[in-house]
Amino acid sequence: MASEKEKNSGSFDNKGITVKKKDDLPQWYFEVVQKAELADYAPIQGFMVIRPNAYSIWENIQKEFDRRIKLRGVKNAYFPLLIPDSFFKKEAEHAEGFSPELAYVESKEGEEKYAIRPTSETIMYDSYAKWIRSWRDLPLKINQWCNVVRWEVSQTKPFLRTREFLWQEGHCVFENEEGAEENMTEMINEYKSFIEEFLAIPLVIGKKSEAERFKGAKKTMTIEALMPDGKALQCGTSHNLGQNFAKTFGVKFLGKDGKENFGWQTSWGISTRLIGAMIMLHGDDKGLVLPPKIASDKVVFVPILFDSTREKVIKKCEQLSKQIEGIGNFIDSRSECSPGWKFNEWELKGIPIRVEVGPKDLEKGQVVIVRRDTLEKEIVSEKDFAKRVNELLVDIQNNLFKKAKSFFDSSFDEAKTMKELEKKIGEGKIVKVFMVNDPSVEKSIKEEIGAASRWVEESKKEGVCIKSGKKTKSIAYLARNY
Amino acid sequence: MASEKEKNSGSFDNKGITVKKKDDLPQWYFEVVQKAELADYAPIQGFMVIRPNAYSIWENIQKEFDRRIKLRGVKNAYFPLLIPDSFFKKEAEHAEGFSPELAYVESKEGEEKYAIRPTSETIMYDSYAKWIRSWRDLPLKINQWCNVVRWEVSQTKPFLRTREFLWQEGHCVFENEEGAEENMTEMINEYKSFIEEFLAIPLVIGKKSEAERFKGAKKTMTIEALMPDGKALQCGTSHNLGQNFAKTFGVKFLGKDGKENFGWQTSWGISTRLIGAMIMLHGDDKGLVLPPKIASDKVVFVPILFDSTREKVIKKCEQLSKQIEGIGNFIDSRSECSPGWKFNEWELKGIPIRVEVGPKDLEKGQVVIVRRDTLEKEIVSEKDFAKRVNELLVDIQNNLFKKAKSFFDSSFDEAKTMKELEKKIGEGKIVKVFMVNDPSVEKSIKEEIGAASRWVEESKKEGVCIKSGKKTKSIAYLARNY
Repeated sequence: MASEKEKNSGSFDNKGITVKKKDDLPQWYFEVVQKAELADYAPIQGFMVIRPNAYSIWENIQKEFDRRIKLRGVKNAYFPLLIPDSFFKKEAEHAEGFSPELAYVESKEGEEKYAIRPTSETIMYDSYAKWIRSWRDLPLKINQWCNVVRWEVSQTKPFLRTREFLWQEGHCVFENEEGAEENMTEMINEYKSFIEEFLAIPLVIGKKSEAERFKGAKKTMTIEALMPDGKALQCGTSHNLGQNFAKTFGVKFLGKDGKENFGWQTSWGISTRLIGAMIMLHGDDKGLVLPPKIASDKVVFVPILFDSTREKVIKKCEQLSKQIEGIGNFIDSRSECSPGWKFNEWELKGIPIRVEVGPKDLEKGQVVIVRRDTLEKEIVSEKDFAKRVNELLVDIQNNLFKKAKSFFDSSFDEAKTMKELEKKIGEGKIVKVFMVNDPSVEKSIKEEIGAASRWVEESKKEGVCIKSGKKTKSIAYLARNY
Repeated sequence: MASEKEKNSGSFDNKGITVKKKDDLPQWYFEVVQKAELADYAPIQGFMVIRPNAYSIWENIQKEFDRRIKLRGVKNAYFPLLIPDSFFKKEAEHAEGFSPELAYVESKEGEEKYAIRPTSETIMYDSYAKWIRSWRDLPLKINQWCNVVRWEVSQTKPFLRTREFLWQEGHCVFENEEGAEENMTEMINEYKSFIEEFLAIPLVIGKKSEAERFKGAKKTMTIEALMPDGKALQCGTSHNLGQNFAKTFGVKFLGKDGKENFGWQTSWGISTRLIGAMIMLHGDDKGLVLPPKIASDKVVFVPILFDSTREKVIKKCEQLSKQIEGIGNFIDSRSECSPGWKFNEWELKGIPIRVEVGPKDLEKGQVVIVRRDTLEKEIVSEKDFAKRVNELLVDIQNNLFKKAKSFFDSSFDEAKTMKELEKKIGEGKIVKVFMVNDPSVEKSIKEEIGAASRWVEESKKEGVCIKSGKKTKSIAYLARNY
């Protein structure tokens, strides 16, 4: 990829992360985000600047996920940033869900009131109603990559919760209920497969409870991850919207049966929040740890430079760089900072593999390779270099996933009483309980212990609702969450 | 690429363009945009929906231009959608230029007044001031692909003038004036090379007059195209910002000289307006004509279907499709509409090459190829198929450029008096005149004849200003414009 590529390393007064991840996760996260130059606080409360180091991750997410949806026949489009207020009000439940978070634009003379989009169902389906005429126009599968704004009042956190974020929102229309249900399912599966493979974040797919369902949807499927502090994180959702929006916005088609029918719809989205999940899950006391598959720069060469051997050593780095062409790599040949300083910088920034090349290595026909995930060092002969780098990249990717998965799997527990539930939630567990799927019951649990259900399922045998004492087959998985 | 790919063809009541391009360009443009499913009017005045047929062009523009800027060391990032009002006010001229077009967000309790970004100089340089410490951090080259909003009061037109549009804005900082001047120049050249090569739009590079310069810039370079009605269209700009913004926002660095210096800055951008230019310049009475290099689907196969030979003919299309793998193509095998109907549809939508395959062609080992630009038909033997398609794609691309270039070149003229100028402007010419580079003089010309300068240059010999009568070496090129 690169030889002697110039890196904007930012300031030279970098001192590494000052706290241990296990001691103070919020402070650790704050420092990693800042010092690895991933994001910066913007001069507008709750907004962030996504810096190149993190934006390149978003670009890689876009590239791979866009490829996947296009294979499924989805096409990209772009709808307006602003949505007439009257559109939200058309679908009552949807309006109720989003109204508190809307940012309105100051009305211009003679024009309607507009809000910045928090999501685009309403404005998109207004167009769909015009575009769709007959069953021949279905399925309609459209996606957009864009920014959305939700005026959160709770505390914000870069990537994980901000008033503006970047995402994709897919919106499809089908001829029948089965089409929508199938699409909802295939997309939540696609999310899981993509995120586990590329970001090494283990996920559980589950159905959202009545209380947590997307407002306006018939059914919401979620992918949930677990952060190191035992808080769950919703990483994406896929909704079966049924015919709710179709009826509101008039998304109708002439069916094969010669009759006019309402379309069956889905919507699904993932966002820049994934970057936050990845930072928090894989990072360590030295800083960011990037899964190789999502990193643009996978290998950094750090030449050990002395005046007399400088040229030879850099030339060797260039030769080795060529051997791994196609794998993002660069040579940090700056003479104004020491090898040790460079080691720290690229560890902080999470580059998966560091290759050290000094004059003595040259003599011995070897290099030193350090993998970022375990910080293990190994000496590799030049002739095995490319092969070993390829092996290590696979190994690092797998190791990150395995570590996270084992943590995730060990975090499940059960409870029979509210007291037991509260204790286990406090320990950072995902706790399985019997709970009636009723928003008022869930609300009272939330008020009592500060945790909501992450997903629900049906049990074969009946149990007793942990809160209401009613008999139920409904099971809920509860955890604190971001 | 594809075999029997499903196409969402939209409605089936398509009737083609009802006016001739030369008779009524605005109506022609309106119909092409609608009927080729490029854009739709949004329910918000002055906003548009970019439909998949046009969005795929934007994706191709992004892909190629993004590749080019990354080769130049530019990195992508993302800055907030909203900008504090106080930021605009910091740079007086910039504020004056953009204030009338700002859309403000309704203030929330205790928060400052925010505007939706019309361009991002101010919010980006606020961050740059924090990030840049020393000469080692320079050059800083950052770009963002995003949406911007400018609340135009004049009439809007899809792609060419809308209140929201998509663009890229590159923002660089250099150690010295030469660095900035060089970057401004290389980027305007990059735009010209990219747009001429991919969109087949001939351009002139020129310097903007004092009146037309970007507000806040020291110098603005423009690329100007000419539309079929003799109106010029600004297709992109590149600005040398000097140290204006650096001084306002404190973009300082410790120089190699050990002293603190202000950075020298540039910004440059192109937008979805390019899609409008392409539609208007290349389209004809049948609809859209896509330059092959920017089209995702370059070839459409239309099998001539009879029940008895259907399978054989489709199989042949699939074989031919495989022969041109890597060139975007699809087979329109719908049985519910006739070949003639399909010919019209894909001509309307501008697919560069149509391949007709019928049972008689099968017998003769040949196919019929129709090129979209000239609508010329030719019979090609199967064995020459792939070669001929490749040749034709190159030929169509070159032909579109040549035709447009010859029109552009023939549209230049000169004038010595205001009367002569007015007449030639009325004829749709780009008219070269002596004009002092003074906003007040330019304003009075604009008021008198409705045309502004598109670019200016310095003459070697002196002449007389067409309006003020003053002696001057300043030359201006005037035209009506979009």
